[in-house]
Amino acid sequence: MKTLQIITTGGTIDKVYFDDKSDYQIGPPEIGRILEDTGVAFETHINALMRKDSLHISERDRDLIREVVDHSESKHILITHGTDTMIETARALMGINNKTIIITGSLKPARFRDSDAVFNIGCSIGAVQSREPGVYICMNGKIWNPLEVRKNRSANRFEIA
Amino acid sequence: MKTLQIITTGGTIDKVYFDDKSDYQIGPPEIGRILEDTGVAFETHINALMRKDSLHISERDRDLIREVVDHSESKHILITHGTDTMIETARALMGINNKTIIITGSLKPARFRDSDAVFNIGCSIGAVQSREPGVYICMNGKIWNPLEVRKNRSANRFEIA
Amino acid sequence: MKTLQIITTGGTIDKVYFDDKSDYQIGPPEIGRILEDTGVAFETHINALMRKDSLHISERDRDLIREVVDHSESKHILITHGTDTMIETARALMGINNKTIIITGSLKPARFRDSDAVFNIGCSIGAVQSREPGVYICMNGKIWNPLEVRKNRSANRFEIA
Amino acid sequence: MKTLQIITTGGTIDKVYFDDKSDYQIGPPEIGRILEDTGVAFETHINALMRKDSLHISERDRDLIREVVDHSESKHILITHGTDTMIETARALMGINNKTIIITGSLKPARFRDSDAVFNIGCSIGAVQSREPGVYICMNGKIWNPLEVRKNRSANRFEIA
Repeated sequence: MKTLQIITTGGTIDKVYFDDKSDYQIGPPEIGRILEDTGVAFETHINALMRKDSLHISERDRDLIREVVDHSESKHILITHGTDTMIETARALMGINNKTIIITGSLKPARFRDSDAVFNIGCSIGAVQSREPGVYICMNGKIWNPLEVRKNRSANRFEIA
Repeated sequence: MKTLQIITTGGTIDKVYFDDKSDYQIGPPEIGRILEDTGVAFETHINALMRKDSLHISERDRDLIREVVDHSESKHILITHGTDTMIETARALMGINNKTIIITGSLKPARFRDSDAVFNIGCSIGAVQSREPGVYICMNGKIWNPLEVRKNRSANRFEIA
Repeated sequence: MKTLQIITTGGTIDKVYFDDKSDYQIGPPEIGRILEDTGVAFETHINALMRKDSLHISERDRDLIREVVDHSESKHILITHGTDTMIETARALMGINNKTIIITGSLKPARFRDSDAVFNIGCSIGAVQSREPGVYICMNGKIWNPLEVRKNRSANRFEIA
Repeated sequence: MKTLQIITTGGTIDKVYFDDKSDYQIGPPEIGRILEDTGVAFETHINALMRKDSLHISERDRDLIREVVDHSESKHILITHGTDTMIETARALMGINNKTIIITGSLKPARFRDSDAVFNIGCSIGAVQSREPGVYICMNGKIWNPLEVRKNRSANRFEIA
């Protein structure tokens, strides 16, 4: 892997906290800072495509994500995405040839001290350069087939569907 | 991957700081805390085998590590190790059949805010479940063949040998 | 100062994030963990009195806080509180004799990496043992007279009223 | 307090870790980053005077520190310093009129996740604006008279002498 194409779409991983609004909003992508701390030995191209809660990702948004993936010159694609609908987006990307695509996100915002964001991004990068072409979900330390995984909302984790 | 065998040997990743001695020492393994923060969807067995600066890992120590790997029932092995001699240890583990073995560590102690430890462990876990049986180094976000990588000490990073 | 009475009432400082609800809630007090990390050289008594967004602190709640302060055997009182109405609570505590009372909180949850919570608690503890009896607000690194400070909501900071 | 004069001299608080040397060295002052995260409501002037382990602070260094304090236009002075000899430096600064001087540091480097650095700086800032002119040590959450405190090296904390 010489170049990794990163596409960010929003979701919990990029949530920031604004006290004056007393709620969370989606900020700029955290993945840049995370990769800088790590000193990765390959090039990265970051496309900050959208900043959406994944409940608001539409079919049109998925078409746009697919288009960006299709046009990327890299064979290795990492997408950060809200966890509520990342499986739907993964399924919408199936059938693209010759690219390994990993979709990840986090259950707690990257800015939290005990967030799973750095781990999940690391896990995705380990997998994206190791797997055959195809589309995968990376959550809870596992690489899942998008057709065989679900988010268990009450337990707040991913598991076999 | 249902079970991941983890073997810790010491190294920078587990270094702690003692002010009264004005230096660092190797503490208990940090990987347990890291996996707990993440909530991984598989079982882990942690064997805290030794607590050594990797400059002090002997051939005897490597024999011991190999023995533990050989006797593990898991097909997926993650070893945390000091970065100065992890390549030698990786080479000493080549030839073991039917197991995917990843050796990782960190350039800054896991207790540092900007450590690469969490990322590297994530990256290793993404790779260990994705790669063919064999031995690999995971550092700087890449999965390396132990015969083709070196640590560049002055630049403090791993690169193609 | 031999003993510090701590009263926690909720607010941003104790906010935690639940992904499945896509919002935050007020969790158990963070101040215990913070003081443990620090190793303070005095005794602390923590009374986790309520877990409220400060917009929901009622006059009745303020009466209860005042009662707890009145009955504390300590002369040094630290109250953690949401920032939106901490000034009102401070004013409601004026007139208590022989006690130095500091009210603090944070603009970002303590669980955020770049939260002001640890700093503010430190600042409050430095002031509570240094000031004459009275009631003070500690925010943005300053010890304020509750009659002369206001929260600037749009700039998200405290300033001279 | 409108302006806080900060003087940094090195010590554990500013220690960074270099893997290639397998030891710690004193880096640039961390206090700037800490105050930026907090958003303090006063001006700060930072004088990064030296980068020394406090065991290497000489009488000449103390003379220099005293000179910088004497010439500062601010009445509020915060000095970060290694913990091993901060008491000696505090005593060397006694007798300066009309200035409140707090000396602090940390038992663990500021870059550690569980460092006492942010808390100690907060505590010092709460005290410096609250105390009568004089010289004080701020460690372990207490404001100490330099004539009545000692560092207990084996327990790694400050206590009544």
